[in-house]
Amino acid sequence: MKKTIINVLEEVELKQPIFIEALPGIGHVGKLVADHIIEELGAVKLAEIYSPSFPPQVLVDEDGIIETMKNEFYYLKSAGDDERDYIFLVGNTQGLSPEGQYEICGLILDIVEKYGAKEIYTLGGLATGQPVEKSKVYGAATNKDLAKKLEEHEVILRSADGGIIGASGLLLGMGSLRGMEGVCLMGETPGYFIDAEAAKALLMTLVSLLNLEVDTERLEERARETRQMISKAQQMEQEMMNRASVPPGEEDLRYIG
Amino acid sequence: MKKTIINVLEEVELKQPIFIEALPGIGHVGKLVADHIIEELGAVKLAEIYSPSFPPQVLVDEDGIIETMKNEFYYLKSAGDDERDYIFLVGNTQGLSPEGQYEICGLILDIVEKYGAKEIYTLGGLATGQPVEKSKVYGAATNKDLAKKLEEHEVILRSADGGIIGASGLLLGMGSLRGMEGVCLMGETPGYFIDAEAAKALLMTLVSLLNLEVDTERLEERARETRQMISKAQQMEQEMMNRASVPPGEEDLRYIG
Amino acid sequence: MKKTIINVLEEVELKQPIFIEALPGIGHVGKLVADHIIEELGAVKLAEIYSPSFPPQVLVDEDGIIETMKNEFYYLKSAGDDERDYIFLVGNTQGLSPEGQYEICGLILDIVEKYGAKEIYTLGGLATGQPVEKSKVYGAATNKDLAKKLEEHEVILRSADGGIIGASGLLLGMGSLRGMEGVCLMGETPGYFIDAEAAKALLMTLVSLLNLEVDTERLEERARETRQMISKAQQMEQEMMNRASVPPGEEDLRYIG
Amino acid sequence: MKKTIINVLEEVELKQPIFIEALPGIGHVGKLVADHIIEELGAVKLAEIYSPSFPPQVLVDEDGIIETMKNEFYYLKSAGDDERDYIFLVGNTQGLSPEGQYEICGLILDIVEKYGAKEIYTLGGLATGQPVEKSKVYGAATNKDLAKKLEEHEVILRSADGGIIGASGLLLGMGSLRGMEGVCLMGETPGYFIDAEAAKALLMTLVSLLNLEVDTERLEERARETRQMISKAQQMEQEMMNRASVPPGEEDLRYIG
Repeated sequence: MKKTIINVLEEVELKQPIFIEALPGIGHVGKLVADHIIEELGAVKLAEIYSPSFPPQVLVDEDGIIETMKNEFYYLKSAGDDERDYIFLVGNTQGLSPEGQYEICGLILDIVEKYGAKEIYTLGGLATGQPVEKSKVYGAATNKDLAKKLEEHEVILRSADGGIIGASGLLLGMGSLRGMEGVCLMGETPGYFIDAEAAKALLMTLVSLLNLEVDTERLEERARETRQMISKAQQMEQEMMNRASVPPGEEDLRYIG
Repeated sequence: MKKTIINVLEEVELKQPIFIEALPGIGHVGKLVADHIIEELGAVKLAEIYSPSFPPQVLVDEDGIIETMKNEFYYLKSAGDDERDYIFLVGNTQGLSPEGQYEICGLILDIVEKYGAKEIYTLGGLATGQPVEKSKVYGAATNKDLAKKLEEHEVILRSADGGIIGASGLLLGMGSLRGMEGVCLMGETPGYFIDAEAAKALLMTLVSLLNLEVDTERLEERARETRQMISKAQQMEQEMMNRASVPPGEEDLRYIG
Repeated sequence: MKKTIINVLEEVELKQPIFIEALPGIGHVGKLVADHIIEELGAVKLAEIYSPSFPPQVLVDEDGIIETMKNEFYYLKSAGDDERDYIFLVGNTQGLSPEGQYEICGLILDIVEKYGAKEIYTLGGLATGQPVEKSKVYGAATNKDLAKKLEEHEVILRSADGGIIGASGLLLGMGSLRGMEGVCLMGETPGYFIDAEAAKALLMTLVSLLNLEVDTERLEERARETRQMISKAQQMEQEMMNRASVPPGEEDLRYIG
Repeated sequence: MKKTIINVLEEVELKQPIFIEALPGIGHVGKLVADHIIEELGAVKLAEIYSPSFPPQVLVDEDGIIETMKNEFYYLKSAGDDERDYIFLVGNTQGLSPEGQYEICGLILDIVEKYGAKEIYTLGGLATGQPVEKSKVYGAATNKDLAKKLEEHEVILRSADGGIIGASGLLLGMGSLRGMEGVCLMGETPGYFIDAEAAKALLMTLVSLLNLEVDTERLEERARETRQMISKAQQMEQEMMNRASVPPGEEDLRYIG
């Protein structure tokens, strides 16, 4: 296995699908949102990606069953008001090396381009390293029109000093070189637990931007559990002070969980 | 030397061999078990692997003789009750880079697949970072039937938050994509000395799972020596507290000894 | 995207251009100088470089607009007294891996060699880790004649114990193997803020060496802002003590901003 | 520059040359010895190696002149009593990545094999992290006869727990797979200064093993200077305590100077 492998599971025609990326990152914010939409709206698995640039390991689930490191595409037909289709990219990891990230993101764009995608939404978390009162949603865009659209939906545009690291940034950057446009949405999160609160804020923004209808009840359930963790989290505050020296990036590639 | 090299030393036919991997890792638990079986049952060397992804170094033995970094295959004909053959993979190192691990594990699976292997057992240690009263054996499997079989042999299935890093995980993950099934067995160990106690527990589980007969006397000998190290080990406990922050993985690729 | 891509934007003939490199590094000294000259003298963009060895991320500007990681060539016709042309290399990043740096620098030299460049100036900062009274300019050269010329322009030749890390060093080293000659100029800087003072000192030296005329007024403006940062910088002195253990290199590849 | 480049400078026939490697490592012990022999006996430069796996930088000498990272072969005809020829490998760096080390060492062995070399001597330092009373010489060999020969020349064979990292180990390991035999000689050194004392001990052992005659006077000169550094070194002892946690390896690839 010297090359990244893409197994396409189904032949499907899609109508200018919107491409939504949510690979694992800080607080699992993007991943929670995408996994929730896929489950609620019944998206169908389209393809799997395996890569020698993924971490050389496997995960083990609660039943002791081994799970291979992978990325997965799902598609969804005509889910929103405007009759557009969707492709989702989720998974349990990202590429480790810069070269691996570029190679995998290039292959991902080849796939979604083939289905006619021209618009990219990448989802992630923005780590504060501190408890968050009410999770805000931050964003960036590949052009001014999209940036303005984000502001109309109460997304806070990020300032210059923060880059977007990993697939959420790279897909937008590499996509723009192919004429695709898009935005990155980031839910504000302490960053040190699985944060359904931030995911809910991010989900609300996303459905508003896309005119999607997604029941948030089950996400609320997870959010309630999350809130109970916050007092525990505040005890961890001191510990965070040390970690706070790490520049808060949108995606921490070392954080996989 | 830009590519991994496999020197096959002997032409041999094997009957659906079970493939057992035990490359070096925490506490040398898996390696002790496999080296012991190879010696006790007289397994024969089949092939050697040299790779530019191995550490760029050599080892020196107690006589000052240099030992090249390598992995080695051994085979064993009809050793158990059910007349199955075996292939063992042992060695003094693992690949360093993710890409190297994937490449080498792919080549290893090519080899054992060619001999007809469909079942994989990977052996390792599970580091606790603390002295262990009586070493338990943990495990994970590629499917529910094998997981159930592990439980019947008193193997504790590992929960979701622990991945299996290195060849012990990757061979199962990549193997499952080729239709191979298998399990990872991990002997519980403090992780900071060569742990024959954990190896003995792992060996007992393995022979029970495979219906093998292996004399454990000489392993006992090493176990006795190991027990004497434990009081010394307890003095090292404080030191361990610092190291305990490192997530306990099945294989620590940096720990080679 | 498995290879470095160079998009040439315009066909142009250049007359033995002088090649000036100023990719980001310590204190942004070189980058400030080159960006200033490009703007003041109206240099024209010639080509863009995208590479899988660049960091796998994007930057976000003050308006929330995403900026791809890239290097850019600009050219300038007959700007100095001696009627020579110029090629500038600027950008927001450098290659991360050694192999990536060598590959990219090789491609850069292919380009400038094609336009007839035989002389290389690389610009950077030399970090002191302490406040700097009056920024001096340090330098090194590929031959003794150029070293002597540097001394005639009050550039201090660096002693043996300091290497020049990154593109500023590598372009000179790899260039000299192709028969190109050149110098590296480094503005002395504390290294922990965007240092227009050091940039001004470096700019004065450069224009004197090249007989260029460049208005420094707008750089002065930035310099004034920089001076106000110095008292704040002195408070950061203690913090610097820790960092001072890092060997002061001309370019710190990890420092990108 | 995507591949390692070897520039052969002269066509020469050599008679079963002994290959002596002394790339930079701890205390510069091996490098001092080889540079001294090359100078004293007038060895002639044979070839240069440039590699994208070398550090992406240049060095600057005391006159401000830039020096490219490289390895160099020298040859020497019929220098010893037994009328054998010699090839020396010296330089200012080693490959950084494992893959790079394997590639470069493979190319080096291709070269020396072409000239008929069958015997390899690799030279380095063995770091103690403490002041050394009288530098001893440690060694390892690819076979028992050579190990016995080392002991006859008062070389102490190294025990099992220490590997030999970098080119000094890898050339012996990879060479033995091609039927070459050899030894590694390591001068005991504190490891934190350029140690001519350790170099002298290593030189005496080497000339005795090879029946070479080399004037040691100028090395003595450097040794005297080195001795004056020792009191200063003892003040650095406390600092060493921290560094002592690093396992003492024969070659520290990060230490280049």
